[in-house]
Amino acid sequence: MSLGKIYGIGVGPGDPELLTVKAAGLIKSLPVLCAPRASDDSESFALSIVKGCVDTSRQKVITAIFPMSMDKAVLEKAWDEAAESITAELLAGNDVGFLTLGDPSLYSTYAYILAKVRARLPEVASETVPGVSSISLAAARAGVDLALGSERLAVMPIGRDMDALGAAMDGFDTVVLMKVNRGFPKLVELLDKKGLLSGAVYVSRCGTDRERIIRDLKYITQAELDYLSLVIVRRQ
Amino acid sequence: MSLGKIYGIGVGPGDPELLTVKAAGLIKSLPVLCAPRASDDSESFALSIVKGCVDTSRQKVITAIFPMSMDKAVLEKAWDEAAESITAELLAGNDVGFLTLGDPSLYSTYAYILAKVRARLPEVASETVPGVSSISLAAARAGVDLALGSERLAVMPIGRDMDALGAAMDGFDTVVLMKVNRGFPKLVELLDKKGLLSGAVYVSRCGTDRERIIRDLKYITQAELDYLSLVIVRRQ
Repeated sequence: MSLGKIYGIGVGPGDPELLTVKAAGLIKSLPVLCAPRASDDSESFALSIVKGCVDTSRQKVITAIFPMSMDKAVLEKAWDEAAESITAELLAGNDVGFLTLGDPSLYSTYAYILAKVRARLPEVASETVPGVSSISLAAARAGVDLALGSERLAVMPIGRDMDALGAAMDGFDTVVLMKVNRGFPKLVELLDKKGLLSGAVYVSRCGTDRERIIRDLKYITQAELDYLSLVIVRRQ
Repeated sequence: MSLGKIYGIGVGPGDPELLTVKAAGLIKSLPVLCAPRASDDSESFALSIVKGCVDTSRQKVITAIFPMSMDKAVLEKAWDEAAESITAELLAGNDVGFLTLGDPSLYSTYAYILAKVRARLPEVASETVPGVSSISLAAARAGVDLALGSERLAVMPIGRDMDALGAAMDGFDTVVLMKVNRGFPKLVELLDKKGLLSGAVYVSRCGTDRERIIRDLKYITQAELDYLSLVIVRRQ
């Protein structure tokens, strides 16, 4: 029996209309789909975006649980389990589509899963299907440009070291800050100090009915912060 | 009569399958489309991507000529002419879709056109429809990640000042260099000096049948360079 092929499919940032024609076609036709979710009793966000394309009477859906953890061992175990299930399907000759939010090349779990599947099946065929990133949608919804003409764009998680973050931002016309829910007050302080607060906009759950776009970052409380959020900073 | 609405529609990097469902639906239904092209006798690349969605028997297509020029006055004149045509349609109550390659927020002409239309019609309603960027497709096709975990990504045109470019690249895990057809030999020299040549890949005309993916930048001749090209540099 020939080995199945693995597809890393970007499903876009949240709005089902922002699926590509290619992604929609693959999701409708593949025999097995794998969708990540955060816990046993939570729904997969990626799967909820594409549910109009999925027919569980003839398609198998594996929902892999990837806990919201910073513990590498916990994550490795979760990725190994997902890779194991996917490998079994590929060995059975089934093509598998791994669904990822946004674009698979940007902060997606797919890279880790693919590496683990390849470690088990070095000869496996794979294809990455790009998607609309949450960054592109956030810029569109907030009405800001990411880059014009000869401008420079930086994309970075805020991390813990605010001095390093501040240094990395210099020389860029636009900076997109990811994973802003941790350390948000320090970020606001940094942007204020650098005179960049007036050019900043917070966007969360973009493309869903829970979308929020907030221009005055000083009025955002910790309780409001969503893990699916980013801040676009545009130098004036 | 009520004013038409202007849409900035990302049509993706080249493969018609990478249109979003939303973009395809809008392009099929809007009464007027505006597509840029480089000269009087060239076809619009954006329009060629979506031609399966366009019916010229019931849709009007304005092809705006945006010359490949660095002369601001020449560009301003071309943008003004396009904005004038679009404004006339909006005043006649027609919704207009402006087609842009890739994603409208990234190095697109749409921002200039929208500003000029707004200067004429400050009350005009507008919507940006994000698309798959050429950067996402290039990464997918070349099999490289743009950013993982806490990594930082920079996107920048190479410009003329290689020292400034080199400095801006420091501290980033991945750098995507745009508009590499001018100054390419100097770029190769810079990457070589920084020990980054082995992690670099050149991608042009991604998603089309003229796509090229070249891993050894030293073997690329000036004649081969395409203006629709980029280099992804990944720190090893």
